[in-house]
Amino acid sequence: MSQWAIGIDFGGTAIKAAVVDKERGIQTERKLLTDTASGPGGIVVQLSGIVADLYREASGSLDPGHFAGVGVGAPGAVNVVKGVLSYPPNLPGWTVFPLRDELQKCLHEKEQLSLSVVLDNDANVAAFGEAVYGAGREFQDFLMVTLGTGVGGGIVLNRKLYHGAYGTAGEVGFMILDFDGPTIHAGIRGTLESFIGKKGILAIARQMIEESSTASAVTDLCGGDYARLSPRHLEQAALKGDEVSLAIWHRVGSLLGIGLANVAVLMDIRKFVIGGGISAAGDLIFVPALEQLRRSMLPPMHEGLELVPARLGNKAGMYGAAALCFG
Amino acid sequence: MSQWAIGIDFGGTAIKAAVVDKERGIQTERKLLTDTASGPGGIVVQLSGIVADLYREASGSLDPGHFAGVGVGAPGAVNVVKGVLSYPPNLPGWTVFPLRDELQKCLHEKEQLSLSVVLDNDANVAAFGEAVYGAGREFQDFLMVTLGTGVGGGIVLNRKLYHGAYGTAGEVGFMILDFDGPTIHAGIRGTLESFIGKKGILAIARQMIEESSTASAVTDLCGGDYARLSPRHLEQAALKGDEVSLAIWHRVGSLLGIGLANVAVLMDIRKFVIGGGISAAGDLIFVPALEQLRRSMLPPMHEGLELVPARLGNKAGMYGAAALCFG
Repeated sequence: MSQWAIGIDFGGTAIKAAVVDKERGIQTERKLLTDTASGPGGIVVQLSGIVADLYREASGSLDPGHFAGVGVGAPGAVNVVKGVLSYPPNLPGWTVFPLRDELQKCLHEKEQLSLSVVLDNDANVAAFGEAVYGAGREFQDFLMVTLGTGVGGGIVLNRKLYHGAYGTAGEVGFMILDFDGPTIHAGIRGTLESFIGKKGILAIARQMIEESSTASAVTDLCGGDYARLSPRHLEQAALKGDEVSLAIWHRVGSLLGIGLANVAVLMDIRKFVIGGGISAAGDLIFVPALEQLRRSMLPPMHEGLELVPARLGNKAGMYGAAALCFG
Repeated sequence: MSQWAIGIDFGGTAIKAAVVDKERGIQTERKLLTDTASGPGGIVVQLSGIVADLYREASGSLDPGHFAGVGVGAPGAVNVVKGVLSYPPNLPGWTVFPLRDELQKCLHEKEQLSLSVVLDNDANVAAFGEAVYGAGREFQDFLMVTLGTGVGGGIVLNRKLYHGAYGTAGEVGFMILDFDGPTIHAGIRGTLESFIGKKGILAIARQMIEESSTASAVTDLCGGDYARLSPRHLEQAALKGDEVSLAIWHRVGSLLGIGLANVAVLMDIRKFVIGGGISAAGDLIFVPALEQLRRSMLPPMHEGLELVPARLGNKAGMYGAAALCFG
């Protein structure tokens, strides 16, 4: 009989939780809207309730003697050793909060359950999910990049999460690619996220559409209102062969490739797993990214370079959080 | 009685070798010009001769039973596991050569000595020297940057060298800071080395001197001939308060700071040891570098940021190579 755990992907919008069997994967899933209004204390009660429900339900069919623990992936800076979450974005009223211990305490006091909890950053947890259950299974070392509203990253070295001295490793979105460039993100000029975070992509798109001498199918897709333009429109138009949209994705992919090159030369990581909503654009991004990655590195360092799409979609966090608990 | 080893810093110009006592440091040193004309085979004989001389001489006062081995730091790409050196710069006729095994064989056949040899990249070895004997002794994790003709780097994680999957980690000089910038190095645009390698610094200097409305003391120091301009002139002028030279170093330091920020956000490394000839400019570089490093990262990530000068100068390679042999 294999181990099982509860994996939680906790964000400013939703809480996704699953019972994960080590061998057979996700057995049950829950999704709730995050009760942001109630602050850290209220959310701990909410999390505790979900865990208790899932645990009691699963204990009917799975052996509690094989329960490995509760893993939680959370946005913001996480001190893994202390189990403390700091300044999670989109969660008003949170500053620095000992989420791991408070959740353990609440499970014990409110639910009479003595379950051990581990906490890690959401980007790390997603990377670990891909490492154990997804696109990173064959890779010893890799970087997972999540392309969404922001650009996040998680580093797996030697099949383990690499946290760094303060637990903040993998912040690829903050790498500077053009220090006197036109874009700014969180007050810092020319970062990867400033270019290819969702806002950055839309800014590139608007500029390239305006500068283009040919009409773009995107204009119709967003009803002529560029304020309504979304990455999905750009994807649809590109897949129909729209030249401007293809050029936009080419530029986005190239910028990603430059960022990956910086990771590759510094850390000698040559495998990249690309996930997040924006990565749905697939080869529209992947092909130019790999081309640019190669162009940005000396040929003796090209050996083994590989870019692959993430495989677990929005379940990576639940998988990875549970996997943190398995020995 | 402590262990001892022979540490060799092998370059395209000189071979520096030392007997290093683990506790007491360097006991004897040798420096010879590299016999580049004789190719890999000839250089192996030269290295073998130096090792044999040092070993026999040291065996008079040090116990051969405590001999830990021969460590060699070499330029170019090193496969640490296989002991193979590939494409070392400034060594004509070298392509891919099993330097470790050939040196062991030559020591055995020509000198009747059975000594074990370890090989690593010169930037890594210098970083390890600083880790064990120099400015990195207090740091668990750090990046050493060598500022000279080129910009090299070596990464120490958890007090050990970090090599990466293919042994090429730490190539900070190849990080791209301005992908559409004006400078190119090894065919790649906007790398850190393109900006602050020796050529890059002199290009910045010439441009800033030309653009400046005030005369610079540097003009006198290089006899009015900017082709003869050297970093030393810029250092001398800056220390005398020359405004333009101060501004040049400020720019060089800021560029270094941007590069370090990329390392810090990605790897969560917050300690930096700066060595190499150019680092003699000291605070002229260090102060703006640390300022820019902080400006390029979010405040919650500033904790622990530190830039320190290397302490072992051009002995770091010998120290680090020997230290590779100690258990």
